[in-house]
Amino acid sequence: MYRTHTCGELRIGNAGQRVTLAGWVQKSRKLGGMTFIDLRDRYGITQLVVEADADADLVEKATSLGREFVIQATGEVIERQSKNPRMATGDIEIRLEEINILNKAATPPFTIETDTDGGEDLRAKYRYLDLRREPLRKALELRHRMAHEVRNYLDSKGFMEIETPYLIKSTPEGARDFVVPSRMNPGQFYALPQSPQTFKQLLMVAGYDRYFQIVRCFRDEDLRADRQPEFTQIDCEMSFVEQEDVLNTFEGMMRTLFKNVLGVDIPNPLPRMSWFDAMDRYGSDKPDVRFGMDIHEITPMVQGHGFSVFDSVPYVGAIAVPGAAGYSRKETDALTDWVKRPQVGAKGLVYIKLNADGTVKSSVDKFYSPEELKAVACEAGAKEGDLVLVLCGPKRKTQTQLGVLRLEMGGRLGLRDPKVFAPLWIVDFPLLEWDDETQRFYAMHHPFTAPKPEHEALFYSNRKEDLEQVCANAYDFVLNGSELGGGSIRIHNADVQKRMFEVLGIGPEEAEYKFGFIINAFRFGAPPHGGLAFGFDRVCALFGGNESIRDYIAFPKNNQGRDVMIDSPSEIDDIQLEELQIKIDVKD
Amino acid sequence: MYRTHTCGELRIGNAGQRVTLAGWVQKSRKLGGMTFIDLRDRYGITQLVVEADADADLVEKATSLGREFVIQATGEVIERQSKNPRMATGDIEIRLEEINILNKAATPPFTIETDTDGGEDLRAKYRYLDLRREPLRKALELRHRMAHEVRNYLDSKGFMEIETPYLIKSTPEGARDFVVPSRMNPGQFYALPQSPQTFKQLLMVAGYDRYFQIVRCFRDEDLRADRQPEFTQIDCEMSFVEQEDVLNTFEGMMRTLFKNVLGVDIPNPLPRMSWFDAMDRYGSDKPDVRFGMDIHEITPMVQGHGFSVFDSVPYVGAIAVPGAAGYSRKETDALTDWVKRPQVGAKGLVYIKLNADGTVKSSVDKFYSPEELKAVACEAGAKEGDLVLVLCGPKRKTQTQLGVLRLEMGGRLGLRDPKVFAPLWIVDFPLLEWDDETQRFYAMHHPFTAPKPEHEALFYSNRKEDLEQVCANAYDFVLNGSELGGGSIRIHNADVQKRMFEVLGIGPEEAEYKFGFIINAFRFGAPPHGGLAFGFDRVCALFGGNESIRDYIAFPKNNQGRDVMIDSPSEIDDIQLEELQIKIDVKD
Repeated sequence: MYRTHTCGELRIGNAGQRVTLAGWVQKSRKLGGMTFIDLRDRYGITQLVVEADADADLVEKATSLGREFVIQATGEVIERQSKNPRMATGDIEIRLEEINILNKAATPPFTIETDTDGGEDLRAKYRYLDLRREPLRKALELRHRMAHEVRNYLDSKGFMEIETPYLIKSTPEGARDFVVPSRMNPGQFYALPQSPQTFKQLLMVAGYDRYFQIVRCFRDEDLRADRQPEFTQIDCEMSFVEQEDVLNTFEGMMRTLFKNVLGVDIPNPLPRMSWFDAMDRYGSDKPDVRFGMDIHEITPMVQGHGFSVFDSVPYVGAIAVPGAAGYSRKETDALTDWVKRPQVGAKGLVYIKLNADGTVKSSVDKFYSPEELKAVACEAGAKEGDLVLVLCGPKRKTQTQLGVLRLEMGGRLGLRDPKVFAPLWIVDFPLLEWDDETQRFYAMHHPFTAPKPEHEALFYSNRKEDLEQVCANAYDFVLNGSELGGGSIRIHNADVQKRMFEVLGIGPEEAEYKFGFIINAFRFGAPPHGGLAFGFDRVCALFGGNESIRDYIAFPKNNQGRDVMIDSPSEIDDIQLEELQIKIDVKD
Repeated sequence: MYRTHTCGELRIGNAGQRVTLAGWVQKSRKLGGMTFIDLRDRYGITQLVVEADADADLVEKATSLGREFVIQATGEVIERQSKNPRMATGDIEIRLEEINILNKAATPPFTIETDTDGGEDLRAKYRYLDLRREPLRKALELRHRMAHEVRNYLDSKGFMEIETPYLIKSTPEGARDFVVPSRMNPGQFYALPQSPQTFKQLLMVAGYDRYFQIVRCFRDEDLRADRQPEFTQIDCEMSFVEQEDVLNTFEGMMRTLFKNVLGVDIPNPLPRMSWFDAMDRYGSDKPDVRFGMDIHEITPMVQGHGFSVFDSVPYVGAIAVPGAAGYSRKETDALTDWVKRPQVGAKGLVYIKLNADGTVKSSVDKFYSPEELKAVACEAGAKEGDLVLVLCGPKRKTQTQLGVLRLEMGGRLGLRDPKVFAPLWIVDFPLLEWDDETQRFYAMHHPFTAPKPEHEALFYSNRKEDLEQVCANAYDFVLNGSELGGGSIRIHNADVQKRMFEVLGIGPEEAEYKFGFIINAFRFGAPPHGGLAFGFDRVCALFGGNESIRDYIAFPKNNQGRDVMIDSPSEIDDIQLEELQIKIDVKD
């Protein structure tokens, strides 16, 4: 028995007890002959004290303790003279009688404090020390709590967690698959799953009715900031359901998580917004609705006034930035440069300042009268004192740019508080996306996503315009500008599936080659089904009030897909390559 | 809304209600103009009936239904005339008003019944249909329930579930590692973990105190029956603990599982047996203690009587098979052949029949008097009517052979009832195993397992005999002859670790190369820690009363490591190989 209590549990009520604690030395200091030691474990910090008149050996031992030494300490719980109300154990301290050094520690390369002096690379290399810091511990505690709540909720709703295999088969469009050579089957490879999509649909065919899994997924793609080659999903599928059933079930799950983990009540029911509305109003299919600043189309109002830039485009849109009419010329110039960066890609920026004194000032005031400018600003939702920002061009592209600008201005105005939560569903996604380059349609979600039953006529039309109108029973769960999850009702009818392949230009042979296995399984009685998956890393990060997922993963990889702590990936022995019957073939 | 109820929930109290069910047609039959349909879903089976005088269309539709068609059916719940007490819904049936065929089904290649007509290969290929059968559904339901109970128990004990990476680094002894070429880091590989051992020890260094994970592990080895290249472990680690703490915690977990899942009370505390006792008494480190038939050494009693076979060996041992004295010459000959098979490897078999009439008969009665034989039989624990079986040779080898024979005889006598549970801990494993061939010691568990503190003097001795006596704080959880889990207290002290490497003949450079990373981490304050891992697939199988794990895994692989359902592993595109910068190099 190494300890009688943890470092987080002793209170004034324990005063007088003889206790043994174990943990790490957070710090130790001498004060008037007394030695104070902060002893830390996962549960908290407790102050130990060695009195000036204590046994000389004990005093010497206490003095010898370095940072992060692992010790076992025994003594009496006493009331503190100067209490620390910021610590749960702040009312007491332990008057030590015995110290047992369980392990010494080399000086850590950075301080184990909430605000550490360690740089990112150093902390990544010594991740096991970085994980000792409170913010990371709290992140992983949150993650554990979230997973537990998810499982309890889904179990209570009759979902079964079923493990699907990690060694699966490379898909025909598997450029992003990690593959695993099979020693037992030379020349052949497994693939690691990008998601358990096929398996969860098979489980529905198998009659499992309600499936979930908190499951690792793998994607070998060039990593953008905050992408990981392995990531975790809450993966779910249900049978005999319509979209409404799926939305209600998972809205309930998220409501339970918000309530039980954060104590936050989210609206019941959650707002829903069509994909078209989201694009029109926010220029994004994952709108941040913590703040307004909606996009407004002003095309008819601004065309025909001799301003050729506006006259030559199909779409002009605006947002009204509250209280920003005072922006200087320098500031609006900087904003113009900002929207012209390739990351945004606008050609230019027009502004209208609706000044607090009722006057109006615009970069295009030679084309429009003050009244016309005021009307436009009003249309954009501006009040006096606001700054209206206008972009123009092709409709969706311009809306997207306005969406990015809106987020930037929202951020500058402090409207994106990570402690405020504004979840919603985005629904009614288009089924198909036209690609101008290849002159064909692609599935916006995947080729097994069902068109809305009420759009059946459009779906069987051969006119491009009709097909573009077909919506899918697909849905995304969006929180604070991030897509946390998404899914769809799947096609379970063979005729609809056949038509889908036809629309996508996938011939019968190609369909058989690419999807034959699952189509064959569906021949044996597939129930209507649908589901969704949440990105668990991101759900945890946002619940923790963080944008980055990295602190919510115990051992993450860096942007090059490397684990710098264990130095992986790495070269392997020739003998291993030989056994696997593969050769490295790196071109210089 | 596809259904108002599931196929498992309607009872007599629902009579008179109009309900809609959805599911699969288990079977349909005509009886006196009426059509009876058994509708199945995950939750049960409900009988539907179409009356002879129903609407003609409805009758026709009902008649057209094939096996495994997916339908939606609406009607009134009525009390059955002939109730079926074996079905939860057996008191009622649904008088149909409407049938909606949601999906037709091709005739399944085997019957979807508890006792199916499908062979193993066919069922593996159509696993999604095999999974519809009740035994497999119950197996996966059990597995879900078990995982949920494990998580609830460990959460309640303060354990955090922390996900460790799947893309890690190949270990220097990584012949059994699956490797994953990295496209982003050409010529380099990740490895899939054989276990999260390193990471869980790092989490202890990081102060996480109590970690667990239900986690997939991977091993690329030649598969014996009932081994899988990917398998699931309940992986656990604790800090500031001694062996006693670990045993108590996980004994509590297993007790909770037995109670909550099976309603079975297991002894409190669980029996413990030293490795030495287990070998001496059962010839196995995973003894099946559901029955006796212990091994008894009879060496001193049988030597020196002129029987050179016994005189020339270091060990003679016997078991007493209850009630088997009546075995014929043919049967004892067959047993002799059985123990001489290479799988057992004995040189021969001696028997003593202690007949019910008090006489004695033995294959060696020319060397021993009846009294001597009776004394031996008595020493082996035989009563009148029992058959004593004797093997001889080197001690451990012979005990192992007797252990195998004991299991065989226990099986023949029906003493190995899968519904009887006899769990126990095996403790006090030897720390080291001497290998005659290489003339060196190997770690019996792994090189980080701690010797018992009370064996410190022996551990620092240089005599082989002393080192062979050193026991480890290592333990296995054994149930009904299977090892379900095991673990150890780890070395956290640098000096002990150094000595361990010395004993294993691992020089400082080799230690640095092979284990440098983790040893370095331990320099920064490693707490005393220990843990264990359970093989979750096998735990589930044994709880389900099954020897084979395959039915407890949704999508298992066969003995060649193949998933015959998805046909994996398989060849991949040249373009994928090119991107990965590897080449296949299969020798003919």
